[in-house]
Amino acid sequence: MTSTIIVINPNSNEGVTAGIDAALEPLRMAGGPAIRALTLKEGPPGVQSQHDVESVTLPLARLAQSLEAEASAFVIACFSDPGLHVVREAVKCPVLGIAECGVLTALTMGHAFGVIAILQTSIPRHLRLWGAMGVTDRLAGELAIGLTVAELADRERTLKRMIDTGKRLRDERQANTIVMGCAGMAVFRDPLQDALGIPVIEPTQAAATMALGRVRLGW
Amino acid sequence: MTSTIIVINPNSNEGVTAGIDAALEPLRMAGGPAIRALTLKEGPPGVQSQHDVESVTLPLARLAQSLEAEASAFVIACFSDPGLHVVREAVKCPVLGIAECGVLTALTMGHAFGVIAILQTSIPRHLRLWGAMGVTDRLAGELAIGLTVAELADRERTLKRMIDTGKRLRDERQANTIVMGCAGMAVFRDPLQDALGIPVIEPTQAAATMALGRVRLGW
Amino acid sequence: MTSTIIVINPNSNEGVTAGIDAALEPLRMAGGPAIRALTLKEGPPGVQSQHDVESVTLPLARLAQSLEAEASAFVIACFSDPGLHVVREAVKCPVLGIAECGVLTALTMGHAFGVIAILQTSIPRHLRLWGAMGVTDRLAGELAIGLTVAELADRERTLKRMIDTGKRLRDERQANTIVMGCAGMAVFRDPLQDALGIPVIEPTQAAATMALGRVRLGW
Amino acid sequence: MTSTIIVINPNSNEGVTAGIDAALEPLRMAGGPAIRALTLKEGPPGVQSQHDVESVTLPLARLAQSLEAEASAFVIACFSDPGLHVVREAVKCPVLGIAECGVLTALTMGHAFGVIAILQTSIPRHLRLWGAMGVTDRLAGELAIGLTVAELADRERTLKRMIDTGKRLRDERQANTIVMGCAGMAVFRDPLQDALGIPVIEPTQAAATMALGRVRLGW
Amino acid sequence: MTSTIIVINPNSNEGVTAGIDAALEPLRMAGGPAIRALTLKEGPPGVQSQHDVESVTLPLARLAQSLEAEASAFVIACFSDPGLHVVREAVKCPVLGIAECGVLTALTMGHAFGVIAILQTSIPRHLRLWGAMGVTDRLAGELAIGLTVAELADRERTLKRMIDTGKRLRDERQANTIVMGCAGMAVFRDPLQDALGIPVIEPTQAAATMALGRVRLGW
Amino acid sequence: MTSTIIVINPNSNEGVTAGIDAALEPLRMAGGPAIRALTLKEGPPGVQSQHDVESVTLPLARLAQSLEAEASAFVIACFSDPGLHVVREAVKCPVLGIAECGVLTALTMGHAFGVIAILQTSIPRHLRLWGAMGVTDRLAGELAIGLTVAELADRERTLKRMIDTGKRLRDERQANTIVMGCAGMAVFRDPLQDALGIPVIEPTQAAATMALGRVRLGW
Repeated sequence: MTSTIIVINPNSNEGVTAGIDAALEPLRMAGGPAIRALTLKEGPPGVQSQHDVESVTLPLARLAQSLEAEASAFVIACFSDPGLHVVREAVKCPVLGIAECGVLTALTMGHAFGVIAILQTSIPRHLRLWGAMGVTDRLAGELAIGLTVAELADRERTLKRMIDTGKRLRDERQANTIVMGCAGMAVFRDPLQDALGIPVIEPTQAAATMALGRVRLGW
Repeated sequence: MTSTIIVINPNSNEGVTAGIDAALEPLRMAGGPAIRALTLKEGPPGVQSQHDVESVTLPLARLAQSLEAEASAFVIACFSDPGLHVVREAVKCPVLGIAECGVLTALTMGHAFGVIAILQTSIPRHLRLWGAMGVTDRLAGELAIGLTVAELADRERTLKRMIDTGKRLRDERQANTIVMGCAGMAVFRDPLQDALGIPVIEPTQAAATMALGRVRLGW
Repeated sequence: MTSTIIVINPNSNEGVTAGIDAALEPLRMAGGPAIRALTLKEGPPGVQSQHDVESVTLPLARLAQSLEAEASAFVIACFSDPGLHVVREAVKCPVLGIAECGVLTALTMGHAFGVIAILQTSIPRHLRLWGAMGVTDRLAGELAIGLTVAELADRERTLKRMIDTGKRLRDERQANTIVMGCAGMAVFRDPLQDALGIPVIEPTQAAATMALGRVRLGW
Repeated sequence: MTSTIIVINPNSNEGVTAGIDAALEPLRMAGGPAIRALTLKEGPPGVQSQHDVESVTLPLARLAQSLEAEASAFVIACFSDPGLHVVREAVKCPVLGIAECGVLTALTMGHAFGVIAILQTSIPRHLRLWGAMGVTDRLAGELAIGLTVAELADRERTLKRMIDTGKRLRDERQANTIVMGCAGMAVFRDPLQDALGIPVIEPTQAAATMALGRVRLGW
Repeated sequence: MTSTIIVINPNSNEGVTAGIDAALEPLRMAGGPAIRALTLKEGPPGVQSQHDVESVTLPLARLAQSLEAEASAFVIACFSDPGLHVVREAVKCPVLGIAECGVLTALTMGHAFGVIAILQTSIPRHLRLWGAMGVTDRLAGELAIGLTVAELADRERTLKRMIDTGKRLRDERQANTIVMGCAGMAVFRDPLQDALGIPVIEPTQAAATMALGRVRLGW
Repeated sequence: MTSTIIVINPNSNEGVTAGIDAALEPLRMAGGPAIRALTLKEGPPGVQSQHDVESVTLPLARLAQSLEAEASAFVIACFSDPGLHVVREAVKCPVLGIAECGVLTALTMGHAFGVIAILQTSIPRHLRLWGAMGVTDRLAGELAIGLTVAELADRERTLKRMIDTGKRLRDERQANTIVMGCAGMAVFRDPLQDALGIPVIEPTQAAATMALGRVRLGW
């Protein structure tokens, strides 16, 4: 029987889920686990506010429990790692969060990491995460591109803002790597890295990688 | 018009709420704000698991919003500070968490603080909080008494366990103060402090104090 | 018998004491403790240098001891917390410092705190305090307005400098809250907060609040 | 053309290399990269002293460069991460160290990590690594089993020592996870985890997992 | 003209000054600066309480100023570094504290440092120093021998207590070096190091060394 | 018999060794240890890359061992402290690194230290050192002058770049002291300090000072 990694997009935007799904294609290998990207249907259109974060924690736990029989691991694909600990409590298999894995992966790719957030208001929430993770000493800085979920649809502007923000992190804050503080924007990773000349980490790919290892190793 | 501090017990145990209510009596002053202790009716019997924590976040936000017209400040009276940031987002007035305020108050009463947790499984959750707060360097240690919510009813045994755990924190971990890692046990503060000979912080009282100041000062 | 919180201004400037006294008015409640602001008569005109700091430590301890019979708690109202630990050693009742309490209160009002110092030369002394307190990870930055005690009399200029400095802390250092690094300037809190749009903490009020709770709770 | 992850054992013990090779079997998938375990022939019998560490850094860089055409990623399979930064400088493809990846993976599996070292004298070297990585706040402790490379051959005793040491880390230091501070002992992971009841991280598997993702993702 | 390092013992115990003087003999070289040990006559018999610490700060500054013409550098020979910053402010030449220099020197001699304090009550004061210095991550622990100044006269018992305490720091806290948390006990350094088998730092010698360099280099 | 401190320049540039030798002149005293500056003949022209760093570790250990009979202490005079721990393991006498000693000495001369690096690419290596040393909280920042070893020959430009970089550290990063992140440039210390108005630490002099004390004290 084949094993399966289930990557859950906690927002209800199927386009984001499709972007995540495409981004995970390289991690699908013959003989390896299946990787499915799912949408949390009751999720908000985007996880922006703290209310959005809290609103998906129990639905994520329920969804994970309902899928437990067919899942070998779960990835929560939202950069606030909503519900990470309650899903871990709910199911026996590995559960990875993309903020956690994105940042930890960055630590292997350069000394100081910068984070590109979407919204200014998410930064304190993320800083609490880096503090809880105990990795604040490695943080060069976190800056927001300042676009709403709706505005992200203009992909040219979005990429331009990411590049501008990444350059500030690199030049003003001395970031050696950049973590993309969002899910579903993997298509920007390559052009962003090309523009910045320093490694760029796509966090959902980073988390799915760690899930893949855990599944194969059985721990 | 008088102002009111509303202290919400996120678990449904009315006995705990009554204990909290009694503990806040000294902070009620003629001319000062009213202080009301409320029970979150839809809360679990005790907040023990991560699921319990997540299950109360949105109900707390909704309850706070529904009471916003009559409240000058809110205190969330559970030592995991569930929903602290979503309630802050939901209402305009001050919102204080007892874990946060209990630990911060401890920092004014001695150098290294120890925490007496109820359950072993809550300790990692608390450690994430201390990390997010950035105060880990002041933590002497956190140890659990290892009793379930049901077992806490045997108050003699509970106090004895608290004293034993506090002595370990004081003697083995060099704690200079002790934070009680629970709500609704204010009656144990005095005997615990007497037995340990170092300051003991009751966190709901600590948080209500900070709320009181914020209400009176209007900021 | 009524209890009393004694707030000591360690400099000899009665105007500062008067400003402190006025700032504490909201914390005086019919049924609550009296709050008195006193001047340390032998203090320097302002506590600016390290010599000024050291010159008031023992006089503060003596004054506190002489008032111990009538005091329920003491607040030391100078942002270097001079003599905090020797006064704590000298008397049995609670002793709070405004730097300590101002910063700890800030930690409940936003993630990263900025500090507006008066003098550039005070910043290393304050940084030692934040280090000793173990809260450096939460510090966004500390910047000075660069006015001498004498120049502070021009209140319009003082406020303007505070606003300019606060904006730099907010915009360049990503401070989410601002702690006023001085005593006796509570009148600037509201306009400063209005101008900055982020919470501003007046430290003497913060410390008196924590003293109030300690007095009422008897611990 | 297929891609290949080359895992280099910096010591000359072919038995260790064979153990590493076997441990990586689960990460070999039909459609995935080949994974080869190699011995650094000029390496010492075991990497125990600081001299041993330094003696393999340039040989590792040379070996990696000589294999660059056929390698998609390298893993350095020694728990002191010898030469990690010089190999990264020497080749363009990803280079992962097992200490770094083992600890970072542990951070996703529990709050405080414990490390089981082989030799007491390696602990300060590892502590410098955790400090350089900026993850000291998550370290519960590191303890050595105190056996020489030669003595490790008695596998029953080795396992027993690991279990004893792991229990001390779990019970006295409150470790929530255990990182095996060595390469080539993957066969002990399962019995160790069974005996301890908390997650045990085998660091070569952890590093190979991160290499696998990097190779597949092309970053 | 010859230069002079003046080492001030802030307590009035001439025996301690004599011990300091003897301990500095090896640092006196024909072509090097003179090194004089002085007693602060108005100091307390021993610096034990916080009051003792504060009582010597201004006298130290005055004494240093009065000697400025003949001094090339000052060392404050008390392990609480009393008045360090005010003396630095008072005179132009280098001023070194023995706690600061003792700990910094320890950082070059092993990874984790342990401190042997005389009194339990001094430990929180020292912990504030390590925090202000930003070196807490390197601290293995600090334990007290628990003898009063009077009891220290029984040198056999004192040494025995130091050895016992040092062994606990080495064995239970994994200290790699030991800093003697006192002045005037240099005679114990050798037997203590012999008994412990790890480096022992005598802090007055460490500070005088750093003063010596500063004087010779003219910076 | 006279004792000798041997200061090894790990690069093969005799001009650098001569500069080091001259810089140590003030530390040579009648009656004190001889101080010799040596060139590691097989060293690279300059230690710039990580490969350069690794290439000198074992040669340094061999050279130190070959000189052990005539040496009382060694100083490794390269700001990456190459081979520091392997040389410590190789010989019984004290071994000091200039990065370590330069930074530790800076901690006694001001609160926040800035580092002037030569090359941008050395900064992450240095940051790993500050992290391993546990002193990151005291770091104001590290910036590079961006000149290659060859370009350093233009001393006027080099000094100008150092001054510019030092001013940025002082003004933008609030550094209170500056550590020169290189060996063999002691002649710039005075003009740099004059230009900046804050203490400038020459690290080889700082390390030789600590070696001098260790030699004289016999520990």
